[in-house]
Amino acid sequence: MEVKNAIIGQSGGPTAAINATLAGVIEGCLSSACIDKIFGMRHGIEGVINKDILLLNDFFTDEYNRMLLKQTPASALGSCRVKLPDPSTDDAVYQTIFGFLKEKDIGYFFYIGGNDSMDTIDKLNRYAAAHSISFVRFIGVPKTIDNDLVGTDHTPGYGSAAKYIAASMAEIARDCAVYTVPAVTIVEIMGRDAGWLTASAALAESINGQGADFIYLPEIPFTADRLFADVERAFQTHPNVVIAVSEGLRLADGEYVGASGQNGAVDVFGHKYLAGTGKTLEAMIKNHFSCKVRTVEINILQRCAAHVLSSTDIEESIQTGRAAVQAGEQGESGVMVCMNRTEEYTVQYHTVPVSQIANQIKTVPTSFINKEGNNVTETCVSYLKPLIQGEQTILWENGLPKHFYF
Amino acid sequence: MEVKNAIIGQSGGPTAAINATLAGVIEGCLSSACIDKIFGMRHGIEGVINKDILLLNDFFTDEYNRMLLKQTPASALGSCRVKLPDPSTDDAVYQTIFGFLKEKDIGYFFYIGGNDSMDTIDKLNRYAAAHSISFVRFIGVPKTIDNDLVGTDHTPGYGSAAKYIAASMAEIARDCAVYTVPAVTIVEIMGRDAGWLTASAALAESINGQGADFIYLPEIPFTADRLFADVERAFQTHPNVVIAVSEGLRLADGEYVGASGQNGAVDVFGHKYLAGTGKTLEAMIKNHFSCKVRTVEINILQRCAAHVLSSTDIEESIQTGRAAVQAGEQGESGVMVCMNRTEEYTVQYHTVPVSQIANQIKTVPTSFINKEGNNVTETCVSYLKPLIQGEQTILWENGLPKHFYF
Repeated sequence: MEVKNAIIGQSGGPTAAINATLAGVIEGCLSSACIDKIFGMRHGIEGVINKDILLLNDFFTDEYNRMLLKQTPASALGSCRVKLPDPSTDDAVYQTIFGFLKEKDIGYFFYIGGNDSMDTIDKLNRYAAAHSISFVRFIGVPKTIDNDLVGTDHTPGYGSAAKYIAASMAEIARDCAVYTVPAVTIVEIMGRDAGWLTASAALAESINGQGADFIYLPEIPFTADRLFADVERAFQTHPNVVIAVSEGLRLADGEYVGASGQNGAVDVFGHKYLAGTGKTLEAMIKNHFSCKVRTVEINILQRCAAHVLSSTDIEESIQTGRAAVQAGEQGESGVMVCMNRTEEYTVQYHTVPVSQIANQIKTVPTSFINKEGNNVTETCVSYLKPLIQGEQTILWENGLPKHFYF
Repeated sequence: MEVKNAIIGQSGGPTAAINATLAGVIEGCLSSACIDKIFGMRHGIEGVINKDILLLNDFFTDEYNRMLLKQTPASALGSCRVKLPDPSTDDAVYQTIFGFLKEKDIGYFFYIGGNDSMDTIDKLNRYAAAHSISFVRFIGVPKTIDNDLVGTDHTPGYGSAAKYIAASMAEIARDCAVYTVPAVTIVEIMGRDAGWLTASAALAESINGQGADFIYLPEIPFTADRLFADVERAFQTHPNVVIAVSEGLRLADGEYVGASGQNGAVDVFGHKYLAGTGKTLEAMIKNHFSCKVRTVEINILQRCAAHVLSSTDIEESIQTGRAAVQAGEQGESGVMVCMNRTEEYTVQYHTVPVSQIANQIKTVPTSFINKEGNNVTETCVSYLKPLIQGEQTILWENGLPKHFYF
């Protein structure tokens, strides 16, 4: 068996678990008979294009450093939001990339990311196939707090974000309940197109006993009438109303509720920048009910809060990384590692071609949303519960979680 | 020794530790030979005025319930923001209060809160003195995440909030560092008049290695020139600039930076409602540097995040409650329990007359702020560090912290 080198990159938005996956890939590589050097791309594919890489063996043959890496939030190697050009119209960047991979004797290319990152894997794999390049295998490793990747039961990173959101939701609900003055608290949660993160707010009430009165997902078109009717009804039984709302909430015509007042700017992938869904609802409720209204945006805290991690999520994140190395060893390319759930909750790892994953979004299914469209169902809660189980034991030093630094 | 009943109330903004103090007072009462029944006011002094009380013995002779109470955020008894009238001009409400206390044979009145709550204790105590009422003793028990009470080295609740802010700050700094595109992240932290909470952001860099580039406190007048010069200089060494800013940041003339766009509304204590300090700075930086700017408002999460608690803070919160009962047993009235710090960090509990505490604010001293006015000093960090030490062991159930419910 020919021994080659491996290279690993992280791409897209950071999560609290993406470094656990990086550690899993590194551990898989370290114990692989097919792999010698393990390189890390600085800032994803930018690191390959700019020849900015690190030799990871120097840092991570040490087990203590791998342990710290697993509890360090955000992308330790740095990230990027580069979208590669269509290989059939512009192949300059591909020549740079493949030239560098050849020069470094890379046989395994691991890319940890979401559906945009799988687009990168897909394009590299197609370019290689079209040019009969076979020295390198491209393996996608899933990562996203959004849980919106098709082909996999759920995504590494989602469980820890869901645990943080649910714990925070329970705490916010307690905080809001202390006064007798009628008030509405809106909690805005991430999720541009899929309501998975917002749905996890339901775990607060289901497990802890108190949470959001209503949960508004982007999958259900928003109407002011529904909002006013919901708040009106809730006020009949208690003075403090809490609403969990997705930043990606939309009107029936597809327009984002929070898009009013935005300048229409889009990112490199054509995604609209969003802000103000909560603030928009806040203004509507203030105007209609003349009561106190507050908006809490959980913001980037939900994707980086590594001081509280789901041990189920962290273990799966590590194993997903190891499964990626196995897929590479077995000669697969252009695939992403996915998870199947079994009935008694465990997961099995397999691969799915990235061409079926890239640029697609898995939304919350209809069976997970109640018929009124203002909360999730028991089926959804049953799906979510296993993902937040267990508290990852982390190392604290002088009162704060300890992080790995290069 | 005459045996009487006790009544306990919680007032002002909730914290993650105020119920630990409630548990401490309850434990002190349970083991006191002077105290029989322990009543809880629903929503602070409102509960006395409206005769809405609970018999706490029913719930908390059970040790497991006290344990849950100690890890439950927000005010379990409910809170209020009532300001009692001047006793010399309007004594109707005092007649109601003292009549009810007499009826229930209350000998000990414990009130857990901040400087507004100490104003309540002070007025009740002065009314009693002026009317030769001696059957009841009024003891204040400190509570505030703001750490702005005079007379005490620090306040119960502050350490856990500081720990949460510092941990979140370290995580946010990691999250912000992953991209190469120049960007500024503003983290808005609570604190209307004192910068203690914002100062705690400094622990992230000091302990963990990465945090805010600059820390702007309300104690130092804000100028746009300083902001632009700071960001300009930071951009010379790294693309991701992080600024921790107090919601109470002010201009030299005392006007709140975040007051622009507000409607000038004030709460019952005459405090201005604040919002938008971070957003105001965001607009200024966007306009000046044309770079990406994001604002993270930690919002009420910083006062209710009981999933991560400083064990130093929780232990002191409990002991403060017990010390309040001792002060009552010893015949004190019109006082608040305070903490002295000794050189090798421990604390000693004593009392200070509430008349010296009510309606006053302890701000961050000059020696704690650097001469540029854009960060804190080592002296400040040394003061802060002991307060966030230790991770309180809490009970989790099905993936979430378990809370106490009446």
